[in-house]
Amino acid sequence: MQQTPLTIDSIFRYVERHHGDKTIVTNSPTGPVRTTYAEWAVRTRKLGGVLDTLGISADGRVGTFAWNSARHLELYFAVPSTGRVLHTLNIRLFPEQLTYIANHAEDEAVFVDRTVLPLLWPLIDTMTTVRHVVVMDDGGDNEIPDDERVSLYEDLIAAAEPIDFRVEDENTAASMCYTSGTTGNPKGVLYSHRSTVLHTMAVVQPNVFGMAETDVVMPVVPMFHANAWGLAQAGPAVGAAMVFPGPMMQPKALADLIVDEGVTFTAGVPTIWQGVLPELAGRDHKLRDIGCGGSAVPKALSEAYRERVGLPILQAWGMTETHPVATSARLPRRLFDGSDEDKATYRARAGVPFMGVEVRIVEAGTTDELPWDDVATGELQVRGSTTALDYYKPDAGVELATPDGWMKTGDVAAIDATGSVRIADRTKDLIKSGGEWISSVDLENAIMSHPKVKEAAVIGIPDPKWDERPLACVVVVEGEELSADEVIAHITPMVAKWWLPSAVEFIDEVPKTSVGKFSKKDLRTRFADYQPS
Amino acid sequence: MQQTPLTIDSIFRYVERHHGDKTIVTNSPTGPVRTTYAEWAVRTRKLGGVLDTLGISADGRVGTFAWNSARHLELYFAVPSTGRVLHTLNIRLFPEQLTYIANHAEDEAVFVDRTVLPLLWPLIDTMTTVRHVVVMDDGGDNEIPDDERVSLYEDLIAAAEPIDFRVEDENTAASMCYTSGTTGNPKGVLYSHRSTVLHTMAVVQPNVFGMAETDVVMPVVPMFHANAWGLAQAGPAVGAAMVFPGPMMQPKALADLIVDEGVTFTAGVPTIWQGVLPELAGRDHKLRDIGCGGSAVPKALSEAYRERVGLPILQAWGMTETHPVATSARLPRRLFDGSDEDKATYRARAGVPFMGVEVRIVEAGTTDELPWDDVATGELQVRGSTTALDYYKPDAGVELATPDGWMKTGDVAAIDATGSVRIADRTKDLIKSGGEWISSVDLENAIMSHPKVKEAAVIGIPDPKWDERPLACVVVVEGEELSADEVIAHITPMVAKWWLPSAVEFIDEVPKTSVGKFSKKDLRTRFADYQPS
Repeated sequence: MQQTPLTIDSIFRYVERHHGDKTIVTNSPTGPVRTTYAEWAVRTRKLGGVLDTLGISADGRVGTFAWNSARHLELYFAVPSTGRVLHTLNIRLFPEQLTYIANHAEDEAVFVDRTVLPLLWPLIDTMTTVRHVVVMDDGGDNEIPDDERVSLYEDLIAAAEPIDFRVEDENTAASMCYTSGTTGNPKGVLYSHRSTVLHTMAVVQPNVFGMAETDVVMPVVPMFHANAWGLAQAGPAVGAAMVFPGPMMQPKALADLIVDEGVTFTAGVPTIWQGVLPELAGRDHKLRDIGCGGSAVPKALSEAYRERVGLPILQAWGMTETHPVATSARLPRRLFDGSDEDKATYRARAGVPFMGVEVRIVEAGTTDELPWDDVATGELQVRGSTTALDYYKPDAGVELATPDGWMKTGDVAAIDATGSVRIADRTKDLIKSGGEWISSVDLENAIMSHPKVKEAAVIGIPDPKWDERPLACVVVVEGEELSADEVIAHITPMVAKWWLPSAVEFIDEVPKTSVGKFSKKDLRTRFADYQPS
Repeated sequence: MQQTPLTIDSIFRYVERHHGDKTIVTNSPTGPVRTTYAEWAVRTRKLGGVLDTLGISADGRVGTFAWNSARHLELYFAVPSTGRVLHTLNIRLFPEQLTYIANHAEDEAVFVDRTVLPLLWPLIDTMTTVRHVVVMDDGGDNEIPDDERVSLYEDLIAAAEPIDFRVEDENTAASMCYTSGTTGNPKGVLYSHRSTVLHTMAVVQPNVFGMAETDVVMPVVPMFHANAWGLAQAGPAVGAAMVFPGPMMQPKALADLIVDEGVTFTAGVPTIWQGVLPELAGRDHKLRDIGCGGSAVPKALSEAYRERVGLPILQAWGMTETHPVATSARLPRRLFDGSDEDKATYRARAGVPFMGVEVRIVEAGTTDELPWDDVATGELQVRGSTTALDYYKPDAGVELATPDGWMKTGDVAAIDATGSVRIADRTKDLIKSGGEWISSVDLENAIMSHPKVKEAAVIGIPDPKWDERPLACVVVVEGEELSADEVIAHITPMVAKWWLPSAVEFIDEVPKTSVGKFSKKDLRTRFADYQPS
């Protein structure tokens, strides 16, 4: 057989040659902007020329600091297709983290959306390797600094010549993401061309997202986070039309875009879909799947979508270190005739890995595999072609892999007989009470099934007798009233008696991380000296 | 990223671990036989042990001479997963071809179904490297020879120990098929583990066959031909249930199996579906797609399925040398609102390649690429990870690749602006008349759209003035009457006047090749001295 490397430029050439007429839509403060893959491809080739002109090293890191857009998609392809490494900077990180990451990756340039320029520019002198700041005008009106490092994206494209792309070695580094870890410095994960193509082919299969030429794909999951769950490569690889929200991330703007553009597939974190639900409920749409992951999808949320939008949420699980998709909870054939309740319970799982990813659970700190009986819980570990085994220039003492070559996820999970994963908790979020573990995720799911609860996060608080006890931090739906006793009464039939939270605190909002996950670290800090009354 | 090889044993481990409860059904003269992937996996591991016990070389070729069955699927996985090479022998080849192929591949063993043992056994002494003949009892009653080379499959499995599978190098040879070429000796195509996994991931995507865990997949295309179009790997790779026809290839048996087993996806050559149509029409079924290829799918056949079975035929194109699937004619988004006629016309195309395969058409004998305007026709050439560039131990003078690294298909095609391929003809079947080319395939399609025509094949016959002229060989539907004038009158509005056949001959049956394609070579021999009256 012919030895053709698995490279991102082969995805580029495919969509350029076969699907030039398909559209790419990017939303903006002044309304949607339309282009086609044909026009996009010319610009992407010109962007390759720009990178040469700017003098970016042959394998240099090129940062982006941008919303989801057709321009960001140009960077997603031009940077790796010229042999360089795309480094997507998370616009929601703290300034110190951004500086650390840009310097750690040794970014030579940063391509920044004008709407978020004020978040980046004040840091630019701390980013010691950045020689170029290229501003992409996404409809914002922020002032553009008069500085020799600064140039305008459209000026550079207009002046550039299109170039040929051809990466010869599929193991060449293609892109990198830093995980916004809750302890220590952020850690960089490096994706290769090969791993990117294999991940792309995996997520387009019907067991996962099931993407086709007939789809209109809208990645709400940010392109600055975890490789946009592979959607930015998967859409082009099958010739799907693309829709990008740009900076217009408000729930109503997202719902309008879904309806107006005939979006068939979209994906984002649970908090996004929580916000979009009331804006989308009852409207005509063409959605066939709503992908969701990043943190556990509450069963109540998925069921609310099934009842009010017409389709349940499709949960997937993974992490930056797994490219990121590793499992998906597509309803299996055996449940076709199952009850709504059984189906909803299944959909709340992380699901089954696709062929190419292996999973196991082990007794913490050992390589002793635990049974797949859906009861035993242990640390979830994965391996496969799309799995990282180490970080980019890791700090001493940071070890991602086990001695026998599996990746430690930090999640605690059970696995059923079909290998479907059920995430019990993050290792660090488990509550240890009287020598037994309590799953904060299960408690949150139970509490969030109360119709008056908007959000809930459960953390462990120190307890002299039991070591730790659960504290439920609950956000009530606006205009509603709820008591601690009502919360406890609601979940009493759902969980073991000794799991019942020792206290319920009502808060205004659950603090979120930069990627929209519940930040339990912040809650733990806030309630560090908490005493149940 | 982790360097995990793309190997067939990783597909095996995936289905073994995650989908053990799904069923595999094999039809037989005494009715369907049921098993599960769990039981199949144990037997497949034992079969690995059998190969060791028989003393097959570490990279030895293992022949199969068998129908589609769960046992054949055991061989499909055990042979390559132990590092050996699966060699599927086509049971419909001539004896001399079988002898040539087995000796050329140096097969050390042949696993043979009892129902077809009489086709193989008389040749066994001519197969000089074959040391073992292992008989699989598929319900036939043929006598089993008393010979020291012969053993019974079930006896060997019963006595064997299951073994571990682990192929380390993805470029290891995995399987081989010989093409039943119409000129010269049969030619062997060697598939690697890597190319097999990449082909598997390609065909399961929705743009191609779109296979999922929720499917029940029935390969009618023989496992002894062209890698069974990848279905024998694709089903397990997504956890689909499998249904095999075994020796029960009669149209009624196939239709019953589709209905009784709830088959959702099936695939085979046009002549199969021609036969199955009246047996399936009007019955309840769960089919979502009927894949078809191997030779051009007549538009009339696809439309007859749409009208009488409820779904049109899904055409794919490829050849043994392309693993074999390279393109598919899934209806594109732009035709969603098209007329039935436009849709049917599109479905008669070979279609668009999947990402990973590239196509071009060139002026014969040059590397000058012709435009994608759907008008210009030239030799279709392909390249990519699933494309062969040479044959196994090729004869001198046989060159599959062009100097610039593309594979010559021998097909003449046009390509439209979206890169959708339309096969005009096989190079050798084109009719050269007055210095211009006439497509025999187009003429056949036109003739076969007549309701009284069962089959039609068009060949070139010598003509003193025009060099060649078309002769239409027509098979009339049983019980109907049709005249040559009626045939000509029917197609006159459809083709250029100078394309109209100079003569129409009515024949009882179009001769078929060993894989069910029209054998125009046989027709040309029969009509070598033909004189139009």
